[in-house]
Amino acid sequence: MTFEEQTVFYKELVDKELDRYMSFPDGLKQGKLFEAMKYSLNAGGKRIRPVLALEFCRICGGEYKNALPAACAIEMMHTFSLIHDDLPCMDNDDMRRGRPSCHKAFDEATALLAGDALEMYPFDVLAGSTSCGVSAENALKMVKMLAWASGHMGMIGGQQIDTEFEGQSPGLDELLKMYRLKTSRLLQAAAGMGCLSAGADGDAVGNALEYADRLGLAFQIVDDILDIYGDEKALGKPIGSDKEKNKYTYVTYAGLEGAKEKAKQLTDEALDFLAKFNNSEFLKKLTIELLNRNK
Amino acid sequence: MTFEEQTVFYKELVDKELDRYMSFPDGLKQGKLFEAMKYSLNAGGKRIRPVLALEFCRICGGEYKNALPAACAIEMMHTFSLIHDDLPCMDNDDMRRGRPSCHKAFDEATALLAGDALEMYPFDVLAGSTSCGVSAENALKMVKMLAWASGHMGMIGGQQIDTEFEGQSPGLDELLKMYRLKTSRLLQAAAGMGCLSAGADGDAVGNALEYADRLGLAFQIVDDILDIYGDEKALGKPIGSDKEKNKYTYVTYAGLEGAKEKAKQLTDEALDFLAKFNNSEFLKKLTIELLNRNK
Repeated sequence: MTFEEQTVFYKELVDKELDRYMSFPDGLKQGKLFEAMKYSLNAGGKRIRPVLALEFCRICGGEYKNALPAACAIEMMHTFSLIHDDLPCMDNDDMRRGRPSCHKAFDEATALLAGDALEMYPFDVLAGSTSCGVSAENALKMVKMLAWASGHMGMIGGQQIDTEFEGQSPGLDELLKMYRLKTSRLLQAAAGMGCLSAGADGDAVGNALEYADRLGLAFQIVDDILDIYGDEKALGKPIGSDKEKNKYTYVTYAGLEGAKEKAKQLTDEALDFLAKFNNSEFLKKLTIELLNRNK
Repeated sequence: MTFEEQTVFYKELVDKELDRYMSFPDGLKQGKLFEAMKYSLNAGGKRIRPVLALEFCRICGGEYKNALPAACAIEMMHTFSLIHDDLPCMDNDDMRRGRPSCHKAFDEATALLAGDALEMYPFDVLAGSTSCGVSAENALKMVKMLAWASGHMGMIGGQQIDTEFEGQSPGLDELLKMYRLKTSRLLQAAAGMGCLSAGADGDAVGNALEYADRLGLAFQIVDDILDIYGDEKALGKPIGSDKEKNKYTYVTYAGLEGAKEKAKQLTDEALDFLAKFNNSEFLKKLTIELLNRNK
């Protein structure tokens, strides 16, 4: 399969499996909650995190079905974070990927609860990975990794710092620390859980975590660039929102060229860690594509 | 130990262990998040759910330390639900247990994220229960049970139904279904995880789940009664809030006497399931005390 075919294959695989997880019994009174969960999960995301989980599993010698629970779990967790991030008390964003955000399409209470539900479901899904050939020990390691990456010492911690930085001017080190928590951690969980799904050893998991750490930083810096210099139509949301919210970003410090250079350097570091794996051509292409993306 | 001594012993044990889980490194930028988590977790709750977990573990032949992770996990999950329930887009309650609710003591964004973090942390804690003598298989069963009980098919589903019932007049069956999700499920997870912590078999877990199902319904109906006929000082919050919000409760349908009768009947059913366990005197007393509580 070519890179493009492989990407489509993974995306369709994950979408189908997510649909299965989102098949709820009819006639339950919380139907609106289910609709809101599905609405946000099917908003046309790039599915980067699931692809990372599936491909790291493959290059660690697993079959893709081993990592399907991890792939779906990480996408649910990512979607939860977007729903709560968009809420009025957070970023107050009305649009997400070219459609009304969850609390606009439904209401605030439903969006809050849909986010809560999509934060919880991943652990149910991961606990079920033993029926996909993952050992109980490794399933439990995935539970621990996902909770760590997403919680108060990870993504949620990063979101707290992000809200406190608003209107302030944190140092560059502080900014990168926040990016690590807010963006790298979930990518790390995706890559790390992919390895664990295949039963890989600690060295492989460690290299995957280092890779995804750099990938996340590069990803966030490219986001910063696109928020100023991107194309609104391609992005599906208005540009300039960081500036409007007085947010200091990497571009504020380093300018466009400095930011591009840093993203390139981080991508190179990511590729170095990738080189420690066999058969990592697909991930290499993906990494470079993420650096050069326009949305 | 007397019932009172045992209760104090359990409560102190859990409080101490929760403090340990809430010991965060100094100097991190998400310090306000940590403070909000601790503020709500230390708001002086009755710790009923942790006590259930610890005592079911004991009567199933385990040591209390086996169930300490489950006990702390369930209290965190319960606290998460209170924080999000109090938010302006939900019940909009300014007070909780005689103190400002989390979003009043901090701010809405911090309360949202503190709730999110306290929803996540339990899974990290449960994954660590293997270092307290719990097998990986049983730890994973606890993860699954907690996610089920708390998620879209459990407590969060119940909260969604609760918001949709506001100003409406659901049937009595619908109301009890909602109570099961909103209130019984977490008590069921507490009792069930207690059994699993001790390595108990499926029959014991099943009986514990049936017991806690009835306990939860009785608990919620007593709550309904206290919201009308309770003592504001003892409760630490104003009474009459259900009526103010046009909420139909069990008392609306059955009146004070009917509600009292139903709570008594459910308590009797709970006691029948309890009788299937040896050494259940403590839980028997606890169950009757919850029926007769004034706060």
